[in-house]
Amino acid sequence: MTQVDVRQKILADNAAAAAALSARFADSRTLVMNLISSPGSGKTTLLEATVRALSGRLRLGAIEGDIATERDADRLRRLGIPAHQILTGGGCHLDARQVRGALAEHDLGPLDVLFIENVGNLVCPTAYDLGEDFKVALLSVTEGEDKPFKYPGIFSAAEVTVVTKADLLPHVPFQLDEVRGQVAALRPGGTLLVTSATSGAGMAEWCALVEARLARKRASGA
Amino acid sequence: MTQVDVRQKILADNAAAAAALSARFADSRTLVMNLISSPGSGKTTLLEATVRALSGRLRLGAIEGDIATERDADRLRRLGIPAHQILTGGGCHLDARQVRGALAEHDLGPLDVLFIENVGNLVCPTAYDLGEDFKVALLSVTEGEDKPFKYPGIFSAAEVTVVTKADLLPHVPFQLDEVRGQVAALRPGGTLLVTSATSGAGMAEWCALVEARLARKRASGA
Repeated sequence: MTQVDVRQKILADNAAAAAALSARFADSRTLVMNLISSPGSGKTTLLEATVRALSGRLRLGAIEGDIATERDADRLRRLGIPAHQILTGGGCHLDARQVRGALAEHDLGPLDVLFIENVGNLVCPTAYDLGEDFKVALLSVTEGEDKPFKYPGIFSAAEVTVVTKADLLPHVPFQLDEVRGQVAALRPGGTLLVTSATSGAGMAEWCALVEARLARKRASGA
Repeated sequence: MTQVDVRQKILADNAAAAAALSARFADSRTLVMNLISSPGSGKTTLLEATVRALSGRLRLGAIEGDIATERDADRLRRLGIPAHQILTGGGCHLDARQVRGALAEHDLGPLDVLFIENVGNLVCPTAYDLGEDFKVALLSVTEGEDKPFKYPGIFSAAEVTVVTKADLLPHVPFQLDEVRGQVAALRPGGTLLVTSATSGAGMAEWCALVEARLARKRASGA
């Protein structure tokens, strides 16, 4: 096989595993989100705030992807939700077979919403579907407003873009309108939310989106 | 070939190309740094500040790696140094053949220091040497102090770690001592600098390091 053949086979194998996961999540009526961003954009922090807001009403669980350490799963377990840590070794993204393996190894129980937090990487995770309902791209205001056009793959693939760390806007140069324009060009009809897990800004809108998408999935699957 | 064979061949081809580049940079007595970080950690901003400080004394040039856009090369050209943009398409790192191709296509002229700014990614670039004298890992204070242990590959491989955006320390939770400890464990004897291109903090130390490493390379090659 050539390099191209190998890559095509990897992607085809992943697509098949992702389709099986998607069917499984349809059966269990679980809404699944695949969260993708640079390292340090605040994926785990957004999830912590989401768990605090929603865990009284919804059964939440998480699969955490990292190169190394159990830190992120530990942070979510401390809030009382089941969380499984996948360690990729050197791998720069999760793949669907790893998610399938995680669910086989660790029964997270019946869930309304499963958050899959991908490895911190704005490139590699984009090509590997994980059976999710939709991808969420995070971009912190400290990263600069040029990122959507510099990383068009993920900002095209993500139905939802969450701008994070909005509490830092007074301290950094960041043109929010520029980001809105780039995201709208890359993903017409997509949703962009501006949030701060620290101040709580935008968290109600984010949680409402999660609940609305869960309701929509259940209505369509009825 | 299996997937493992393909990957080994890719890395072996890259290593051969990197060795040739290293010999070329030894001949030209050019100090070469390979800058690696997450998207938005401030690689280009560090280089802008470096160019402002050193371009009167040293001949500087840059190769910029991005998935898309010429933004970063444009930013450096505006400061008067030659800069070549490599667009990787979807590729999550630069490889040595791309650097060789860039130098063939665009004569940057005789240089004292060549900065190679890799694609924004804390994982993939680590395995691909580019003929550089050393790797520099950047970590902004907004990314969180857990990153070295979560991304041990790059923080082991980098001789120098530059903590950036120190001006934001009053506004974010970031345990600098924790980062120092992790980096020291991963790269004993490595150098860690704390900088802010905005306030200028630490920039004198960074520029002194660049000049000292250039002098050392020239002394050892004499």
